[in-house]
Amino acid sequence: MNEDSLVKRIGQGFRRRAGKPLALGIGDDAALFISGADCEIVLTCDWFLEGTHFLRGKHPADSVGWKCLARAVSDIAAMGGEPHCFLLSLALPSSLTGRWLDEFMRGLRRASRALRCRLAGGDTTQLDKVLINVSVIGEVHRGRAILRSGARPGDALFVSGTLGEAEYGLRQLLKQRGPISPSNRALRKHLYTEPRLALGQWLASNRMATAMMDLSDGLSTDLLRLCAASHVGARIEVDSLPAISLAKATEARDLALHGGDDYELLFAVKPGDSPRVPRRYRGLVLTRIGLITRELKLVLAENGKVRPFQARGWDPFRY
Amino acid sequence: MNEDSLVKRIGQGFRRRAGKPLALGIGDDAALFISGADCEIVLTCDWFLEGTHFLRGKHPADSVGWKCLARAVSDIAAMGGEPHCFLLSLALPSSLTGRWLDEFMRGLRRASRALRCRLAGGDTTQLDKVLINVSVIGEVHRGRAILRSGARPGDALFVSGTLGEAEYGLRQLLKQRGPISPSNRALRKHLYTEPRLALGQWLASNRMATAMMDLSDGLSTDLLRLCAASHVGARIEVDSLPAISLAKATEARDLALHGGDDYELLFAVKPGDSPRVPRRYRGLVLTRIGLITRELKLVLAENGKVRPFQARGWDPFRY
Repeated sequence: MNEDSLVKRIGQGFRRRAGKPLALGIGDDAALFISGADCEIVLTCDWFLEGTHFLRGKHPADSVGWKCLARAVSDIAAMGGEPHCFLLSLALPSSLTGRWLDEFMRGLRRASRALRCRLAGGDTTQLDKVLINVSVIGEVHRGRAILRSGARPGDALFVSGTLGEAEYGLRQLLKQRGPISPSNRALRKHLYTEPRLALGQWLASNRMATAMMDLSDGLSTDLLRLCAASHVGARIEVDSLPAISLAKATEARDLALHGGDDYELLFAVKPGDSPRVPRRYRGLVLTRIGLITRELKLVLAENGKVRPFQARGWDPFRY
Repeated sequence: MNEDSLVKRIGQGFRRRAGKPLALGIGDDAALFISGADCEIVLTCDWFLEGTHFLRGKHPADSVGWKCLARAVSDIAAMGGEPHCFLLSLALPSSLTGRWLDEFMRGLRRASRALRCRLAGGDTTQLDKVLINVSVIGEVHRGRAILRSGARPGDALFVSGTLGEAEYGLRQLLKQRGPISPSNRALRKHLYTEPRLALGQWLASNRMATAMMDLSDGLSTDLLRLCAASHVGARIEVDSLPAISLAKATEARDLALHGGDDYELLFAVKPGDSPRVPRRYRGLVLTRIGLITRELKLVLAENGKVRPFQARGWDPFRY
């Protein structure tokens, strides 16, 4: 096994023939991509590191392959964009270039097909741990991208899906011995992230959201980022949070507030537009969870009381 | 120090205001980039890992910052493109977020200005080692990119600059105790890579080269890649190699043949065009080193004898 044969193996099973918008794919010094005339290019990258973002002994290689791409694509969804292609940077031990790599590539290829995001190139090297970095290139119609910075006081705040589900799945996974049941729904959300592409594109093309981001590090941490970018505050109605059902309601609430990895969309909508937000978009539940406020702080409203709200989501420099 | 304050510090000193072609830079879910109507986007990414690509105890942080961007930009030069912006993925220990990070950022900012390649975004996390991944986005006029695959038998083979200089510099660096002298030219080439952007763009805009790549892993390894992509072979005239001057001529020859990290351009030119290749382009020496051949192998011509030629350049899966 050398680097060139590894690159060949990685390219196998992906569509090789160039075709618009990817004019030249894997195998040269760089890839070539042709952008639509009325489009802006959307660019993002994401680490996915053994020991930090996944555990090799716990996470199936297939899920590592799926998720490394899906979570990077989620940033494209968060702008209202459409993904097109990605660059894969992969470092791994020589001992994993057999079955582990095969399963990893199977998951990655499935994600690539499902998300319509083609392999355009990358870089590989040898290391004692698995390190992955994925860069995704997508497009959005010019002027339609939804930034974090557009929320205004009075806007209604919405999220898609259920919150805390992926973090709950991770906890299950860490507790569990033996093989993983694919029918465990919470585990599925943690292992096989689904970027909310259709919703993001619908909100962008209908100019429905004033600000948007994806929830990767937990609502409390990410909402603070959206508010900081928009120079606003927010008030969350705790009872309205789309939490999971657990025997301990407080655990479900904390998971909804601080649990990471859900990759749901958080978006703000002008008061006049908020009745136009459907209860479901293509089967995905949309929930109004609060309000954008003028004062630069986050507050929680619960049982008629209002209290300040600390970000307690994921931060790699705090753990 | 948390992730958000680290991202703020990284953004400092870079031009923040958006301007064509970068419509939205660091701080949102993704960056936005507007491509020219008659252009193709050029995309590439590169690992730069502590222990594999640099040694924290040996390489100044300033050079790590410069080189991680410069070597990724070299892939844009190798297509004949112009770099525009980059994504920085950085993992580092908390203990290095002080002076080390400052010096790293100083080198990165200098490279960003010198190469006219703006910071567009990225991802940061904490780890026990410094891991860097850089993705670069550039442009090339539509149809003008120079691929690896266009070389034909009879084409003349050229390289820019001197070969083996950077590898010689690395050997000096590994031997040396005490502080590094910036006046050591070989060390400078190893530490502060200069992508051959102007030459690459000149060759592309004049349709001068049939195939091109940058030399990152050594002439023997990289030429084999160019030949494989073009389905051709090559013959190198050993005496014509632009090697460095050393007491041992065989050491200089081996460095020129197999030494990595020079980031010079290797390009093929149609026989009729080869007299139009100047001896120097903007001060950079261009040397004709051999010929593209029909037979799918590499040979060395030396003292009237021809012998086959093994790739012995850098391969992370062999070391």
